[in-house]
Amino acid sequence: MFKGAEILEKVRRERPLIHHITNVVTCGDCADITASIGALPVMAFALEEVEEMVQAASAAVINTGTLLPNQLEAMIKMGKKAGEKGIPVVLDPVGAGATAYRSKAALDLLKIVKPVIIKGNGAEIGSLAGVKGVRISGIQSIDAGDPLESAGRLHAVLDYRAVIAVTGPVDVITDGKRVARVYNGHSYLPLVVGSGCMSASLVAAFAAVEKDYFLAAAAALAAMGVAGEIAAEKKKIGPAEYKARLLDTLFYLNPQEFSNRARIEIR
Amino acid sequence: MFKGAEILEKVRRERPLIHHITNVVTCGDCADITASIGALPVMAFALEEVEEMVQAASAAVINTGTLLPNQLEAMIKMGKKAGEKGIPVVLDPVGAGATAYRSKAALDLLKIVKPVIIKGNGAEIGSLAGVKGVRISGIQSIDAGDPLESAGRLHAVLDYRAVIAVTGPVDVITDGKRVARVYNGHSYLPLVVGSGCMSASLVAAFAAVEKDYFLAAAAALAAMGVAGEIAAEKKKIGPAEYKARLLDTLFYLNPQEFSNRARIEIR
Amino acid sequence: MFKGAEILEKVRRERPLIHHITNVVTCGDCADITASIGALPVMAFALEEVEEMVQAASAAVINTGTLLPNQLEAMIKMGKKAGEKGIPVVLDPVGAGATAYRSKAALDLLKIVKPVIIKGNGAEIGSLAGVKGVRISGIQSIDAGDPLESAGRLHAVLDYRAVIAVTGPVDVITDGKRVARVYNGHSYLPLVVGSGCMSASLVAAFAAVEKDYFLAAAAALAAMGVAGEIAAEKKKIGPAEYKARLLDTLFYLNPQEFSNRARIEIR
Repeated sequence: MFKGAEILEKVRRERPLIHHITNVVTCGDCADITASIGALPVMAFALEEVEEMVQAASAAVINTGTLLPNQLEAMIKMGKKAGEKGIPVVLDPVGAGATAYRSKAALDLLKIVKPVIIKGNGAEIGSLAGVKGVRISGIQSIDAGDPLESAGRLHAVLDYRAVIAVTGPVDVITDGKRVARVYNGHSYLPLVVGSGCMSASLVAAFAAVEKDYFLAAAAALAAMGVAGEIAAEKKKIGPAEYKARLLDTLFYLNPQEFSNRARIEIR
Repeated sequence: MFKGAEILEKVRRERPLIHHITNVVTCGDCADITASIGALPVMAFALEEVEEMVQAASAAVINTGTLLPNQLEAMIKMGKKAGEKGIPVVLDPVGAGATAYRSKAALDLLKIVKPVIIKGNGAEIGSLAGVKGVRISGIQSIDAGDPLESAGRLHAVLDYRAVIAVTGPVDVITDGKRVARVYNGHSYLPLVVGSGCMSASLVAAFAAVEKDYFLAAAAALAAMGVAGEIAAEKKKIGPAEYKARLLDTLFYLNPQEFSNRARIEIR
Repeated sequence: MFKGAEILEKVRRERPLIHHITNVVTCGDCADITASIGALPVMAFALEEVEEMVQAASAAVINTGTLLPNQLEAMIKMGKKAGEKGIPVVLDPVGAGATAYRSKAALDLLKIVKPVIIKGNGAEIGSLAGVKGVRISGIQSIDAGDPLESAGRLHAVLDYRAVIAVTGPVDVITDGKRVARVYNGHSYLPLVVGSGCMSASLVAAFAAVEKDYFLAAAAALAAMGVAGEIAAEKKKIGPAEYKARLLDTLFYLNPQEFSNRARIEIR
């Protein structure tokens, strides 16, 4: 069997806790996907607790999507503690290249936290690597450049060894020696606003149980791509569909049916 | 008819305003469920407005899911004002037991705000009560302990009388004299990341219109459980399903159809 | 063809970037709807980057839904820069009238930022205009007053010319000379908690590509109403439905199927 499938099974068996410091736009989606793959999500941002929380976790995600200065401070504090304890940190440098503030923050995180996996779109990774000609509009890669070249140049900038995962129509993952290309995916996938953020959560869940972070990242992006293909083909009710149904059922809940079905015992 | 069904009807008739100070991960879900049950949600965190907002509300929810120090300050300010005015406050001590910061914050809220209802999972309530052996991973109860014992020990710690609602496969609700057990629910329910937070919103909506907070809490958790059962069986389009459809309709909106259907009058 | 349909086509062709400073409850919905209509959403709140981000954008949204003082400061900084550069700003004064803090903040934004479009429900616009008898409960218009009267009185208060769009069963849009009424919509639409916030994102996307902001606002609200009608009638899978399917597919992802389908190449 494909090694990635073993990693998936290990995630479901071990249910690793994934600590996120992430943006306010897609944090619910990141929590949902972490739970969907079988891991446990937690979001915690307070300086007072990030070191303790990350030590209870098996991996962490840092996402700069709606970065604020005090959150950056929490990311650094959490990331340094994770590094000391050997807990893998995934950096998703959302919007790097869009403003000087975000680019500098991402570069500071690379320098101080040294995340073991850096996952971004072509424009984000290219911007961090100083590649000319890549272009981002907000958080959207407009000119993605050559992913392998960008990853190579970012490796040259870093003073440590990281896995770099560049998402795109074909995902390119490299640790500087090996290169993986993931051809799975679906045209709907980039249309989902949170899909990039969500894939970082998957990468962290896989890295939580697989020490070869290169394989973990490649397998996680393959899982996202495969699920993206299947989701376009068939539908099976799960937690996400169920949440909508739950809300709508409450909306229509008939007092008589509520009475008839309530199984409540009071003593 | 079951008393809970009358409370449900009263919620829909009176449409109470429910003020939330809650986490950024599931706040949208909490707003959605408050509206689904027929109440009005509002989220307001600024120190400058929490006292005024809660006085316009009929109940309030405090949720420590992504707690930050300034938010804790707002919770205390809001909760004290609610107490003065006799507005019921529901505390959802999300992640209590996971870090010292969250545990202390929840205990401070119990001491200062004196919420009339405390709703949490077994590990959260057990942690607050100082029960040995309960275990939490992030926000997930791993070893839930005995809910009635935890509630009893938390009652002993409190210097006032509260309703304690411990969620789990069977929900246990007690005011120190009466004990209710809710057997409704579905295996999908704990898989929905926000289901715990959402149930606190339901409890607050019910407590907004029913002064017997014990009955209100038990009935609200029964409503959640019953809806959880029905949602697994059948599907009826409501606001949640409709929101997804709305977004997808905009995605496909055909300019010609838009032209044909637009009913707009300009003078 | 209806002018609004041309604006829609232009949004899809140009994919304008829409910078949001908005609340934490519905920010994901606002990002989703911006993408659904074919524009690019970005959320950025840090004082350090709002001026740079808004200059890269073609329109901006300011929403006071969960306002905090530092966020208000960012809104003012962003809004002033947008004004200097001729980038249209849409103000959605969520909860104006509910607390003195929100009302004052919205009035300050009108005075300092001078947003070219103000979109709110009847109670919000009426409150800002000082109309007696309008009533809001949290963010819900309870007594909406007369929209055209409220808009007229708000125009009289403003020291500049703005388009005022008052949402309701019939949306009323006016620039002080022309008046548009939009009759499209569906009873489900106001039941979606984020529908008001989302409509502001649509207005901004339309204003990003159409300099006649009166027409842009009217057409955007018509698009919302038309999509709201179609969504109640038929269903077609798009990014929103797909997101739920994706999460549920990951939940069920079979390791063997994952193995069989993974198209990954490692060198």
